[in-house]
Amino acid sequence: MASNGISHVNGSLAKVITCTAAVAYGPGQPLVVEQVQVDPPQKMEVRIKILFTSICHTDLSAWKGENEAQRAYPRILGHEASGVVESVGEGVTDMKEGDHVVPIFNGECGDCVYCKSSKKTNLCGKYRVNPFKSVMANDGKCRFRNKHGDPIYHFLNTSTFSEYTVVDSACLVKIDPHAPLDKMTLLSCGVSTGLGAAWNTADVQTGETVAVFGLGAVGLAVVEGARTRGASKIIGVDINPEKRIKGQAIGITDFINPKEIDVPVHEKIRELTGGGVHYSFECAGNLEVLREAFLSTHDGWGMAIILGIHPTPILLPLHPMELFDGRRIVASVFGDFKGKSQLPLFAKQCMAGVVKLDEFITHELPFEKINEGFQLLVDGKSLRCLLRL
Amino acid sequence: MASNGISHVNGSLAKVITCTAAVAYGPGQPLVVEQVQVDPPQKMEVRIKILFTSICHTDLSAWKGENEAQRAYPRILGHEASGVVESVGEGVTDMKEGDHVVPIFNGECGDCVYCKSSKKTNLCGKYRVNPFKSVMANDGKCRFRNKHGDPIYHFLNTSTFSEYTVVDSACLVKIDPHAPLDKMTLLSCGVSTGLGAAWNTADVQTGETVAVFGLGAVGLAVVEGARTRGASKIIGVDINPEKRIKGQAIGITDFINPKEIDVPVHEKIRELTGGGVHYSFECAGNLEVLREAFLSTHDGWGMAIILGIHPTPILLPLHPMELFDGRRIVASVFGDFKGKSQLPLFAKQCMAGVVKLDEFITHELPFEKINEGFQLLVDGKSLRCLLRL
Repeated sequence: MASNGISHVNGSLAKVITCTAAVAYGPGQPLVVEQVQVDPPQKMEVRIKILFTSICHTDLSAWKGENEAQRAYPRILGHEASGVVESVGEGVTDMKEGDHVVPIFNGECGDCVYCKSSKKTNLCGKYRVNPFKSVMANDGKCRFRNKHGDPIYHFLNTSTFSEYTVVDSACLVKIDPHAPLDKMTLLSCGVSTGLGAAWNTADVQTGETVAVFGLGAVGLAVVEGARTRGASKIIGVDINPEKRIKGQAIGITDFINPKEIDVPVHEKIRELTGGGVHYSFECAGNLEVLREAFLSTHDGWGMAIILGIHPTPILLPLHPMELFDGRRIVASVFGDFKGKSQLPLFAKQCMAGVVKLDEFITHELPFEKINEGFQLLVDGKSLRCLLRL
Repeated sequence: MASNGISHVNGSLAKVITCTAAVAYGPGQPLVVEQVQVDPPQKMEVRIKILFTSICHTDLSAWKGENEAQRAYPRILGHEASGVVESVGEGVTDMKEGDHVVPIFNGECGDCVYCKSSKKTNLCGKYRVNPFKSVMANDGKCRFRNKHGDPIYHFLNTSTFSEYTVVDSACLVKIDPHAPLDKMTLLSCGVSTGLGAAWNTADVQTGETVAVFGLGAVGLAVVEGARTRGASKIIGVDINPEKRIKGQAIGITDFINPKEIDVPVHEKIRELTGGGVHYSFECAGNLEVLREAFLSTHDGWGMAIILGIHPTPILLPLHPMELFDGRRIVASVFGDFKGKSQLPLFAKQCMAGVVKLDEFITHELPFEKINEGFQLLVDGKSLRCLLRL
C-alpha cells in the first residue's frame, strides 16, 4: 500500500513515504482517502506505521469544526492508534525501528518543570494537549503533503488517520511487544482518560461511591476504573436507555435515565447514597449535566470531575458560595496519566486482565471505510470503531 | 452591671440573668445598648460571660441586612469573643463554671459523620455555620428577651454582643486559662479563618509562593499563616495603598495596588513568580478579584482559595475549560479548622509566639461604644476593634 521515495531532508538522505491517509478538507465534509507524502522524522521525532486507529468524539468535534478557532484544512485527524516505529529522528534514544508504540496527544518531554513535578500535573510544558496546534513544534511545518504538494496540517500531536505519521517522541509511548495492538489504541485516549480519572484524579478507594454522567467510551472507562478499585456503588446516568445493558456489562450497580424520573438526578443520587457520592464524573460536555454532577456529590468532601469538552462560551453554572459546602470541582486531562512514564505499566495491567478492554471496541472496519466509522459514532451506535490499516 | 433573677427552666431551678447587650432592631439602624434577659442554658448548652468581643465584616453584613433572606430582628449580632463559663446545661461534661472559652460559629459536635471524617471536612452536620439560623437547635427558641418580653434572635450560633450569651457546647472551645483573653477573640473567626486557610486548606510548604487579595484582618491572617510556614514570596494585593505598611509589618514580601499598574494583576503576579503562585487567597468578596486570584496561580498545580463572602447571585466567572489548565478553586470555611479539636493547640501556639496576634487589634473601645466600632470598620479604619465588657 505504501511506497518509499528518497528525499533530502535536514541535509541527510532520508525517505519520503507515499501512503494512504484520510484527509479532512472542510468542516463536516466526508474525509478523502487518498495518497499523501509523509516526510522523515526530524530531530526528536519518530515516524510510525499505524496498524490500528479508532475514532473518538474529539475527532468528530474537530471534523465538524465546532470551534472555529481550531479549524485548519486540509488536515489529518485521529489521535487513538497503535503501531510500529518505522524510523527515528536525530536524538531519539528510547525507541527504535520495530518497537510497538501508542501515540499520546498529551505528551511528556520528561525535562520541563511540569514533567519533573512528580504527581502534581501531567501537563507537559511543551507537548501538552493543544487543540490550536496544527504543525510540528520543531519548525512550525507539516510532515504531510497531498498530491498537489500542499501541506496537510497535523492534529493533536498525533494525526493517526494515515498509514504513516510523524510525531514528537514526547508523544509516543513504547509498550510491551506482546500487548494486543488492536486494543492498545484505547490507551491513546478514551480508556486512559476515563480510567485514569477514577484511578489518578479521584483516586477512588474501596467502598467509595461514584456517579458517571454519560456512558460513552470515556464514561464506561470511568466505570471500569471504579470497578477495579472496588467502589461499592457505581451509578451510571444516561438519557439513552440502551446504555443500561452496556453499563452493567462493565460494572455499574445502578442506572438512572434522567428522562424516567421526576426529580433532579442529584436528588435521586443523594437518596441512593445517603447524601451523595464521593466522586462524580461529567463525561457529557453539557453544563446542565455538569451542575447535576456537582450537586450529586456529598457535601463536605465530594468531588466532581469534568472530563467532557465544553465548546460553548457559557461559564460554570455554579455560585461561589456553593463551594463553601465543601464540594470540589476539577478537570482531568488524559486521566492525569503521565503518558510515557505510566502507560507501559497500564498496558501490562490490561494484558494481565486487571483492566478489561473487550467491551469498548464495538465495531471494526477497514481503514478505507473511515467515513462509515464516523457515522456510527455520530449516530451513537458505536463506542469505539476500530479501523484496521 | 448584670443582675441575677430566679426562674424555672427545664423543670429545674435556674437563674435568668439580666445584663447589657447591643441589639439590632433593623437593617443599618444603630445598635441599641440595653438591658436584656438571658435564659439559663438548656441541655448541652453553655451560658458564658463575655469579656471581650470584636467586630467582623460578617457582623457588618448582617447588620446592614445585605441578604434579605438572612434578616431577623431584633437580634444580637457578634461572633468573635472570649469569656468565661457561667453555667452549663444538662449533659455538658467537657466544660465547667470558670473555664476560659472562645465561641465558634462553625461548631463541632464530634459525633456526626462529618465530625468523624477526620481531615475530610470541618463542617459539622448539626452546628456548621448557618447564616439563616436565628434560634437554638434544642427547641427552636431564643434565650434572649428584651424589656418588653419579646424574644431576641440569635446569630451565627454565638451572639456575642452581650454580657452573657447562651451557645451550644458544640460551638464553644475551652482554652488554656493562661492565654490572653483579649487577643483570643481573634480565634473565634478572623485569624483562624485566614491562617487556617494557609495552614490547612492550602497546606503551604516552605519555599512556596502565595498571593493574598484583600488585606483586611482575614487576608493579613493568611499572610501570617504563609509567613509561619516559610513561604518564599507573599504578594499582598489591595487597592488601599495604606495596606502596604500593615502588610509588610506582618510579612508580605511584595505589594500590588491594582490601581497603580497598567496590566491585569494576574499578569504581574505571573511575572513576579515565574508563571504564577502556588496558592492565591480571595479575601475581598468580589468576583472580578476572584477571577484575578484564579488566574494568578500557576497552571498545572495552582489553587485559588475563596474566603470572601459573595452576596450577589452572580455565578463563578470561570469557563469549565479553564479548569483543564490544572488550576483548582476551592472555598475554605473557618480555615478548615475543626474548632473544638484544634483551637486549644492553636491558642497555645499563639501564647508561644509561633503566631503573632499583635497587629490585628487596631482599636479598643468600651462595649457601650459598639456603634463607633462598627463605624471604624465601615470606614476601613480598623482591622479589629476590641470591645471590652
